[in-house]
Amino acid sequence: MEGSPERHSKKKVVAVVGGGLVGALNACFFAKRGFDVEVFETREDIRQAKIVKGRSINLALSHRGRQALKHVGMEEKIVSQGIPMHARMIHSLSGKQSPIPYGKKGQVNLIILSQNTSLLFAECVIYKIRLLLKPVCHVAAVSHRPDGSTEEVEADLIVGCDGAFSAIRKQFLRRSRFNYSQTYIPHGYMELTMPPINEEFAMKPNYLHIWPRNTFMMIALPNMDKTFTCTLFMPFEEFEKITTGDEVIEFFQKYFPDTIPLIGADALRRDYFRLPAQAMVSVKCSPYHIGDKCVLMGDAAHAVVPFYGQGMNAGFEDCIVFDEIMDRFSEDFNAVLPEYTRVRVPDDHAIADLAMYNYIEMRAHVNSKWFLFRKHVDNFLHFLMPRAVIPLYTMVTFTRTRYHEAVERWHWQDKVIHFEKMRFCFLQALSFFLNLLFEGFFMPLNI
Amino acid sequence: MEGSPERHSKKKVVAVVGGGLVGALNACFFAKRGFDVEVFETREDIRQAKIVKGRSINLALSHRGRQALKHVGMEEKIVSQGIPMHARMIHSLSGKQSPIPYGKKGQVNLIILSQNTSLLFAECVIYKIRLLLKPVCHVAAVSHRPDGSTEEVEADLIVGCDGAFSAIRKQFLRRSRFNYSQTYIPHGYMELTMPPINEEFAMKPNYLHIWPRNTFMMIALPNMDKTFTCTLFMPFEEFEKITTGDEVIEFFQKYFPDTIPLIGADALRRDYFRLPAQAMVSVKCSPYHIGDKCVLMGDAAHAVVPFYGQGMNAGFEDCIVFDEIMDRFSEDFNAVLPEYTRVRVPDDHAIADLAMYNYIEMRAHVNSKWFLFRKHVDNFLHFLMPRAVIPLYTMVTFTRTRYHEAVERWHWQDKVIHFEKMRFCFLQALSFFLNLLFEGFFMPLNI
Repeated sequence: MEGSPERHSKKKVVAVVGGGLVGALNACFFAKRGFDVEVFETREDIRQAKIVKGRSINLALSHRGRQALKHVGMEEKIVSQGIPMHARMIHSLSGKQSPIPYGKKGQVNLIILSQNTSLLFAECVIYKIRLLLKPVCHVAAVSHRPDGSTEEVEADLIVGCDGAFSAIRKQFLRRSRFNYSQTYIPHGYMELTMPPINEEFAMKPNYLHIWPRNTFMMIALPNMDKTFTCTLFMPFEEFEKITTGDEVIEFFQKYFPDTIPLIGADALRRDYFRLPAQAMVSVKCSPYHIGDKCVLMGDAAHAVVPFYGQGMNAGFEDCIVFDEIMDRFSEDFNAVLPEYTRVRVPDDHAIADLAMYNYIEMRAHVNSKWFLFRKHVDNFLHFLMPRAVIPLYTMVTFTRTRYHEAVERWHWQDKVIHFEKMRFCFLQALSFFLNLLFEGFFMPLNI
Repeated sequence: MEGSPERHSKKKVVAVVGGGLVGALNACFFAKRGFDVEVFETREDIRQAKIVKGRSINLALSHRGRQALKHVGMEEKIVSQGIPMHARMIHSLSGKQSPIPYGKKGQVNLIILSQNTSLLFAECVIYKIRLLLKPVCHVAAVSHRPDGSTEEVEADLIVGCDGAFSAIRKQFLRRSRFNYSQTYIPHGYMELTMPPINEEFAMKPNYLHIWPRNTFMMIALPNMDKTFTCTLFMPFEEFEKITTGDEVIEFFQKYFPDTIPLIGADALRRDYFRLPAQAMVSVKCSPYHIGDKCVLMGDAAHAVVPFYGQGMNAGFEDCIVFDEIMDRFSEDFNAVLPEYTRVRVPDDHAIADLAMYNYIEMRAHVNSKWFLFRKHVDNFLHFLMPRAVIPLYTMVTFTRTRYHEAVERWHWQDKVIHFEKMRFCFLQALSFFLNLLFEGFFMPLNI
C-alpha cells in the first residue's frame, strides 16, 4: 500500500476485465498503488444501468468484504447503504417464526443490494480509473497472439474479474495442466418481490427469513426500498411441473401459506412465469495465473453456490490477499502471481466446498431438532471456551481465518465432540455389561 | 443387433467424429445395425500412419474390451496380435523380482499395442464405413448453427469419439447445466525403449514389470517386436531437475540400476531428452448427450489416468452399453441418449476415480508389506468364498460388473473386514481389562 507513482520510472498498466463488484474494487486497489488502471466492461455503463428484475440477488457483506472495502476507504459509505441483519428467522409450515442468532450478541451480518455494484463503481472516480466499454474478447486477445481480426490492448497485467462465465478463463482452458471444474446443482432459483405494507416492511426487516422445506426452500432478504426479495430454491423439474397460475397458488398454499397475503396472489400468478428458473454453478480452477501476465479473481476464479453468503466476500478478500502479496514481493509480478495461486487456491476451494455443504444443510437440517441442538451446543461451548471452540459459521463470517484453516479446525472440533460421544457410549455399554455379568455385585458405574 | 437396413425407410446417417480405437469400434457397431456411417478424422489416414515414438502407450485389453470386440466379430483377430500377461513383476531396488498374480489361475490380461488402432480401423472395411479426412470443427458445426465460414454436415446422430481434448465436447461446454471437470495430475510420463537381446525379450515377456519407488515409478510392457516400452512416471519438477546425460545415468543408477544394461547407457542419455515429459489428465462430465442429436463416448466423455489399465476397455464398453440401450428402445435416439447418460455416467465416473486411486496405490503401496498381505488375504478369501468375496481388481478386469457396483461392493467388503478387525480388537481389550480386574479369577478369554 506504500506503492506510489514515483517508484516506477514508467507507470505500469493494469487491465481489469469486468466492471462488476470485484473488478471495481480491484481497480481501486491497483490505482491506490499508483498503477495506470483501465477497466473493460462489455455491458452498458453500469453506473447508469437499471437493475434487472428477477436477477438482482441480494448480497451479504461480512467481515472479509468489509476489511477489503476499508482498505480503499469505502467501508462506511457502502455499509450505510445496507440493512444490518441480526439473525435467521425460520418460518414453519404453520407460520410460526423462530429466530436463530448468527453468533454472539453484537455480531451482525450486513445485507447490501446489487445496486451497490454501480455505487461501488461510482466510487472509483476518486481513483481516476478509466471505464472502457469494449467486448471482452478484445482484451482477452492480449494473453495470446491476436489473429488479425481482434484489436490488441497493451497492458503489463491482465486481471480477469469477469465473473462465473469468464472469457479470460477460457484462455486458461486452452493451456495444458490447467485444472478446472464446473458443477451445476440440480436446483434453480426464482426471485419474487414482497411489497411494503403501509410503506413499511411486510416482515421484520433485520432477519434472513428462511422457509426450509427439505428438498426445496425459500429465503427473503430486505431491500432499502422496504421490499423483500423472496428467492425460491427448487429442483428444476419441480419448477417445470408448475405450469398455470392456479398451480402456483396451490403450491404456495401447501408450502408457504404465510407468504401468499404478503406477496399477493395476483403477483404470484404473474411473476412466477416472468423468467424461467435460473441455474447455479460452482466453479473451481487452478492455477489462477499465467506467467507474470494474467491472473483471475472473484467469480472468474471461484464461482460458488450462494448458500454461505460468502461469494462477494471471498472475491473482495482475493483483492486484499493479492495486495498483501504485492507488498511482500515488491510488486514483482513474476513472484506475486505464483504466490497468489499457492496461497489462495486452497482457501477458495474450501469456501466453494462449504457453500455446497450448506446447500444441503440449509434445506434439510435447519428443519431438524438435531441441527438446532448442535447449533446451541456449538454456541454454548464457544461461550464457555471462546478461544478453543469457535463455530465454523463464526470463523467464516466474522473473522479472516483462512477458509481452509477454518474447515480443518471445524473437522478437528467435530472429531473431538464425536470422540467424547463415543467414549461416553463405550463407558455406558461397559457399565451395562458388567452389571449384567455380576448382577447385584456391581452398581452401574455412574459415569 | 437385429437392426437391418430394411427396418428404415431411409437409412439414418451417423457421423462418428474421431477415428481412434473407440471411434473405429463404434463405427462397426452402427454399421452392423444398418446405419450409414461416416467417420471423420483430422489426422492423416491412420491405416498408413507411422507410430509416434515416445507416445505409443501400450494398451491392456481385458474382459470388457474383448466382449465389445467379440460383438463385431473382431476379438480373435485382435487378440492374436497381442501378448498375454500372467502377472505383475515387482523389481526391488536390489534388482530382486517378485511376481504378483492378477487373480485366479487362467485369468490373463492381454496387452495390445497402439499400432492396433490402425489394425482395428482396417477391419472396418468389412462394414463399408467411409473414412473422411476433415477438420473436426466442420463436423462440430452440425451441433450448433454454422456461422457461414464452416461447412455443414448432415447427420441424424453425431458421436463424439475424439479423445481427451474433444472438439465435440467443447460444444457441450457452451451450454448451461453441463457439468465438467479436468484434473491434471502432478506426474508426467516419459517412454524409453528396451531393445531385444539376441533377438529375444530382454526380460520375461508375459509380465507387467513394475519398479515402485514411492513418489515415482517405472513400468515396462512387451511389444510384438520383442522390445519393451518402459514408461517412467514422475512429478514434472523431478523430470525438470535432470538436465544432462550424466544426471540421467546417476538417477537410473540410484533407482533403477537393473535397467541400465538392458536399456543401454547411451540410449538413456539420448532418449531422455527426445521429448519432454507428457501430461496426464482425468476428465469427467455429464450429461453425455445433447437432445437426440449428439453423444460422447470414450476419452471424449471420460479420459482417465492410465493406472488401472481400463481406459480403452471403458471406451469399448461404452459401445456395448449404447448398443444394448438401442435394442431396449428400438433405436429411438430421443429415449436412447438420455438413458445412456443415466446408465453410463456413474460407471465412467467410478472407473475415473479408481484409476486415480490406483495412481497412488501403485506408487506407494505396491512396495509395502501391508499391500502384499492385503492382496493375499483378498485372494485367499475369494478362493474360500468365490461368490461372496471378489477382489476389486478381479471385478473390474475380468467381469462386466458395472464399475460403480464394483466400487460399492468393494467398500462393503472393506467395511466387513474392518468391522471384523474392530470386533477382534474390542474382545481382546475386554479380555485384558477383565483379567486386570480379577487377576487370577479369569483366564484371558481365548477368542
